[in-house]
Amino acid sequence: MPETDSYSPTPRTTPTRGRERASYDRALVHSILDEGYLCHLGFVRDGAPFVLPTLYARVGERLYLHGSTGQRPARAAASGGLPVCVTVTHVDGIVLAKSAFHHSMNYRSVVVHGTATPVTDPAERALGFDATVDQAVPGRAADCRPASRKESAATALLALDLAEVSAKVRTGGPNEDPADAGLPYWNGVLPVRTVYGPPLAVGDPRITGANWDTAGDAEAPAYLTAYARR
Amino acid sequence: MPETDSYSPTPRTTPTRGRERASYDRALVHSILDEGYLCHLGFVRDGAPFVLPTLYARVGERLYLHGSTGQRPARAAASGGLPVCVTVTHVDGIVLAKSAFHHSMNYRSVVVHGTATPVTDPAERALGFDATVDQAVPGRAADCRPASRKESAATALLALDLAEVSAKVRTGGPNEDPADAGLPYWNGVLPVRTVYGPPLAVGDPRITGANWDTAGDAEAPAYLTAYARR
Repeated sequence: MPETDSYSPTPRTTPTRGRERASYDRALVHSILDEGYLCHLGFVRDGAPFVLPTLYARVGERLYLHGSTGQRPARAAASGGLPVCVTVTHVDGIVLAKSAFHHSMNYRSVVVHGTATPVTDPAERALGFDATVDQAVPGRAADCRPASRKESAATALLALDLAEVSAKVRTGGPNEDPADAGLPYWNGVLPVRTVYGPPLAVGDPRITGANWDTAGDAEAPAYLTAYARR
Repeated sequence: MPETDSYSPTPRTTPTRGRERASYDRALVHSILDEGYLCHLGFVRDGAPFVLPTLYARVGERLYLHGSTGQRPARAAASGGLPVCVTVTHVDGIVLAKSAFHHSMNYRSVVVHGTATPVTDPAERALGFDATVDQAVPGRAADCRPASRKESAATALLALDLAEVSAKVRTGGPNEDPADAGLPYWNGVLPVRTVYGPPLAVGDPRITGANWDTAGDAEAPAYLTAYARR
């Protein structure tokens, strides 16, 4: 099927409120997913919701979700696929209005609904593992020891196709009530961003509670010293 | 019931893997919840999981969840309570090991299971709204116009008691396989943190897409210029 520029809305990707913030634009969805590496994975067990922070990677129109084989989602997915909701959220600012009611957040989020299935093909598993490492640290998969057969067997990898997908974005300043114009309260935006580094090599005393037994190289690689998410 | 220093584990707050990272310590749980203001709210609708980014506040042993009255969780909770899973995650670092397998994240997360119910008592609603504003920006609730009756009626506030709660924490450097000691790959931690500010007043050209129609004061208040989450 040829790719279009947008995902098709479905009842569950159509918000009941805030529709003006919703988007199905494929490039926007990809950009939000690519800026992150940690999603919140929702699934149902015994009728109750579970939400677990989970590492992921995007490869084309597929997400890979990373976990250990003993975890609940991996075990459930192994028996026929697991209905999931994957949500990725970036907070960009806290929006301060003159009224409590109009306080808000600037953010970009993506919600993916679908059925996650275990990846069993060895080549796709290797690709998915590499993608997960590279999603967090681009360039790293080629600069570490690949998983052994035993390590691979202990790692669960789920696949989730990007089909039922929506993004939500809020930007800009507060939406004030015109009647509040004269009130003496400061209004605007407190920007929020995530920063990375500088890298701390094994042996650095700022790494607390460490239990490694190998020594790092002196020089951190360029993909760490020049690390950036966008 | 007198408070103890720990929450009691239940089957669903006992992880199937990574038990050594799990904690039920009340002070730790509170510290993780208090450092955040955005949770990922999981619930079930028509048998399928949903995960939505949601603002929250902690007041004692209760979480308040903020939303619009038209949203799915608020509507579902209004008819008898909504089983939810609330997850709060702080990422502290990306852990780079010599092997792909031992790559990891340093993080602190809290997972709360329970039934969310709408807050209807006017005094508790006012307290919950103030707490939600102050959770994101401590000191702000007293420095803006409180919600009018009409605004309050348009805002859903759900309560969720902290009873079935667990935390998970990973710190430190990579857990290396001793056999990898001689490999030439850099290992260590890439620290991750969230930074705030400086505040941008309404009218600042760095606020994109703004649509306010009031002018901010020149000076940002101290609770913004000295903003810190810990």
